[in-house]
Amino acid sequence: MSGRTGPFWDGVAGRAPVPRAAATLGFEFVAADVDGGTIEVAFTATDDFTNPVGNVLGAFVAAMLYDTVGPALLATLEPDQFQSTLEFKTSFLRPVRPGRLTGRGRVVHRVGDVAFLEASLADGGGQTVATATATARVIALADAVTAV
Amino acid sequence: MSGRTGPFWDGVAGRAPVPRAAATLGFEFVAADVDGGTIEVAFTATDDFTNPVGNVLGAFVAAMLYDTVGPALLATLEPDQFQSTLEFKTSFLRPVRPGRLTGRGRVVHRVGDVAFLEASLADGGGQTVATATATARVIALADAVTAV
Repeated sequence: MSGRTGPFWDGVAGRAPVPRAAATLGFEFVAADVDGGTIEVAFTATDDFTNPVGNVLGAFVAAMLYDTVGPALLATLEPDQFQSTLEFKTSFLRPVRPGRLTGRGRVVHRVGDVAFLEASLADGGGQTVATATATARVIALADAVTAV
Repeated sequence: MSGRTGPFWDGVAGRAPVPRAAATLGFEFVAADVDGGTIEVAFTATDDFTNPVGNVLGAFVAAMLYDTVGPALLATLEPDQFQSTLEFKTSFLRPVRPGRLTGRGRVVHRVGDVAFLEASLADGGGQTVATATATARVIALADAVTAV
């Protein structure tokens, strides 16, 4: 993975700033298997993400899973490619307290420029707190600003 | 609506603090029709929510829609009730730039303690940028800390 470049790997390697949204979510890159299409990342859920009873609002749980499926695909792309997420679904399995959460994402299948993705999010005790699936499209990096 | 109390309406009326997660998303209550099960809210997407090309990351678009469907149901509940979102899906229709976004949510159908919800998010020009559906469960407020 060390020789790879492009918007994702440049951020991981410190050659480009971490995207603002990723920083807001406390995103950390942990590891990736590009050939296998899998990635492990982590997030830090702060009190800024909590609902009135102190649990992490599902909004932010979903946001972290979105920022797991995206990198799973991004890590496999060429330097001049980017991705556009078309649809994204989350199932919320358990309550989530603030702290460090681990996201594991996977490219389930890719056919042409369409990719089917999945991810799960686990708490500090290793329990799966939420899962997600997504459908994304591989696009030219030059088209990223006009894509969803 | 002025006579209603409970976790949602207390926040709207300033009797309780705005939830931390809602504040992070720049949430504002605009209007609700409790009998019709509809709500209008707004969010402020800042640069902290952006991807490398300056668009609002879908993670935060989804988060805003989550915080639209939830309030649509919460606004209709009794003071001792709360809600737990079981699953949530977003479709991303158009790129989103930072700025004020308007969320419109609706309780599509409720049967017992299960509610089917939907929402859309529009940009400053009135264009729909994303839509969402969700399935939620009405729970006792006392059970909120152990619910998803």
